[in-house]
Amino acid sequence: MATPRVVIVGGGFAGLWATRALRTAPVRITLVDRGNHHLFQPLLYQVATAGLSAPDIAAPLRHILRKQRNVEVRMATVTGIDADARRITLDEGDALAFDYLLLASGATHAYFGNDHWAAHAPGLKTLDDALDLRRKLLLAFERAEAATDPAERDAWLSFAIVGGGPTGVELAGTLAEIARHALRDEFRNIDPSKARVRLIEAGPRVLSAFPHDLSATAKRQLERLGVEVVLDAPVKDIGANGYVLGDRFVAAKTVVWAAGVAASPLGALLGAPLDRAGRVLVQPDLSVPGHPDVFVAGDLASLAQADGKPVPGVAPAAKQMGRLVAHNIRMRLFGGTTQAFAYKDYGNLATIGRMAAVVDLGKLRFSGLLAWWFWLTAHVFFLIGFRNRLVVLLNWWWAYWSYQRAARIILGRDEPA
Amino acid sequence: MATPRVVIVGGGFAGLWATRALRTAPVRITLVDRGNHHLFQPLLYQVATAGLSAPDIAAPLRHILRKQRNVEVRMATVTGIDADARRITLDEGDALAFDYLLLASGATHAYFGNDHWAAHAPGLKTLDDALDLRRKLLLAFERAEAATDPAERDAWLSFAIVGGGPTGVELAGTLAEIARHALRDEFRNIDPSKARVRLIEAGPRVLSAFPHDLSATAKRQLERLGVEVVLDAPVKDIGANGYVLGDRFVAAKTVVWAAGVAASPLGALLGAPLDRAGRVLVQPDLSVPGHPDVFVAGDLASLAQADGKPVPGVAPAAKQMGRLVAHNIRMRLFGGTTQAFAYKDYGNLATIGRMAAVVDLGKLRFSGLLAWWFWLTAHVFFLIGFRNRLVVLLNWWWAYWSYQRAARIILGRDEPA
Repeated sequence: MATPRVVIVGGGFAGLWATRALRTAPVRITLVDRGNHHLFQPLLYQVATAGLSAPDIAAPLRHILRKQRNVEVRMATVTGIDADARRITLDEGDALAFDYLLLASGATHAYFGNDHWAAHAPGLKTLDDALDLRRKLLLAFERAEAATDPAERDAWLSFAIVGGGPTGVELAGTLAEIARHALRDEFRNIDPSKARVRLIEAGPRVLSAFPHDLSATAKRQLERLGVEVVLDAPVKDIGANGYVLGDRFVAAKTVVWAAGVAASPLGALLGAPLDRAGRVLVQPDLSVPGHPDVFVAGDLASLAQADGKPVPGVAPAAKQMGRLVAHNIRMRLFGGTTQAFAYKDYGNLATIGRMAAVVDLGKLRFSGLLAWWFWLTAHVFFLIGFRNRLVVLLNWWWAYWSYQRAARIILGRDEPA
Repeated sequence: MATPRVVIVGGGFAGLWATRALRTAPVRITLVDRGNHHLFQPLLYQVATAGLSAPDIAAPLRHILRKQRNVEVRMATVTGIDADARRITLDEGDALAFDYLLLASGATHAYFGNDHWAAHAPGLKTLDDALDLRRKLLLAFERAEAATDPAERDAWLSFAIVGGGPTGVELAGTLAEIARHALRDEFRNIDPSKARVRLIEAGPRVLSAFPHDLSATAKRQLERLGVEVVLDAPVKDIGANGYVLGDRFVAAKTVVWAAGVAASPLGALLGAPLDRAGRVLVQPDLSVPGHPDVFVAGDLASLAQADGKPVPGVAPAAKQMGRLVAHNIRMRLFGGTTQAFAYKDYGNLATIGRMAAVVDLGKLRFSGLLAWWFWLTAHVFFLIGFRNRLVVLLNWWWAYWSYQRAARIILGRDEPA
């Protein structure tokens, strides 16, 4: 009998953890990803805000998996999935046959039907997004310095981050810190600390996945850093020169989208039932209804926990799903029974800015400096690759000590918006 | 009397050193650059070959100059120079008046009238060039791994670097090292160490600015690293699938241009006499004939030394020119006599690859491991910014110890060529 072929699409937390969990399985694995790297997404906002370089939070998939001889890594985009014929097609025209498939292509931003906002309010999902955003944020201060019209100058110094989840909170807090500290003394015509950094949330509180008291703490910490937090305020429109809040237009040259995610479009290629966000409604064992050998894991999978709440779209859930899919593929190989997914929630962390974070470990909740140290330690610990950890620690130590940002380099040839 | 206005175009070695040398002068300086950063160009090949991140070798001009209160930094492109009216115009439409002008906008690549080669053989002058080149080099191995046709696979594994100067030698040596060491064990269908890395030089030896014996040593060191050195071989044509050498077409998907530089086009805007490479023929005091208050320094200036040889286009010469222009502007301010430029040559270093370099200090010449340590120490010492030095040292220590490259991340959304 030929060695069973496993195709895994996506080298994020779900796909990479599944691949590694299959290292001793008698299978041939092909890991397909559009990029060449695994990305440590929890620190992506640091690349966007010029604290880290792109390679600091990414490692080549080939390098991570070089010693796992049953894996072949393929950099390509999936263009079709035929679950019945057990085949996926790639952008280069060729196809990969599989006996087992894991689809773990994650999520992208969603503008809730307002796709024309995308041009004016970029989101943050990939390293390219982060470098584009860094360019946009740093250029805004350059344009403000060069502006001769006071209204134009103010519009360049007006920043809005839409969405009060972890990404929005991190971006707003860090941007306020940059304006107040990192850019001090560097401009002659503007005072960067007068920049207006607004965090806009449609719901009644920031970090809604956290308990109410930690949301309130996060809001206070943001305000202390200089962020203006606006709650219960859905954005009505976004254009090149500002946004509409309620019935009022606010001039702002820089709007960042941190409000919504939708599943990767690959879910739709599967032909399986999807939820409203485009995620695949999976069986308890993470397989696709009617296709017991096709699995979905990570942000692309839609599954309820025992208490009815959805499994959250966070890295620990993706890793746990990836490992369970590996286990269930082994069960199928050896004729065993697949196991249902049960999310183990070890807690929830969010950072806000300099020495400010919130930690929710269930019974134990804390915030401020201690939470920030806890957050920092956990994130450096989970970073893949020995060298990256050292460089990230060195950058943070330097940033902390100097109030500076290490990666304030504007890259890219495109003309600014 | 109003404070005299000095406009300096270009934040490279010449422009930045002139700016700093004017820190106590009673002038108002505007430093104009297209980018937001000073670039440590001698290490640019390390970014292209994935050893360093872009921000490791660059620092924001604003940050470097934040404490020098007589300077304003302006990120803009110069579109016109009127030396008689003492005014330059910028891309955003506004103009800057000056009493003294220093033009130090450097050099760009030149294809000697074969501009259609540019699309197939990119050069290396800016950080964006380096990231494009990194992408191209890393993608070639990905394409080779995915190729099903053996001839196509070989073409993806065939690399040519055109030009045997310091940049060509560094790129060829490092690329051979990557193919042989960094990528080991990572591919399943190809053997990266079988990649063909060719260094093609039209003249009779590599590193022609060095003494003959060091050129010969450099060639031997390159060959030991796995580079095929081809001398006396002008390239006749370059296309998407290969190049023509003599009357033979060689299949190669990746050709890099390190063969020629031309002066920045801003020299032509000045209306002064230029040499064949487009550089401005300056007076001995670095002023422009007929415009004693307009100076040119760095790679854009064309000047002969006392022995008739041209001042070389290297960082030490640019710094020395920048400082002399600052001195001569002071002389003009106070009615003194300007001084003629005399290049102080402290020696010439070139690195070749792992533990291989050549050093020419006039009477003292050496190569190999000792030269490599000398090169490394000198380059880290001259890197601007305390933090960058630490990060670069850490990266090199890690690369040396692990044979790995820290920045092997493919960035950019464009489709590969």
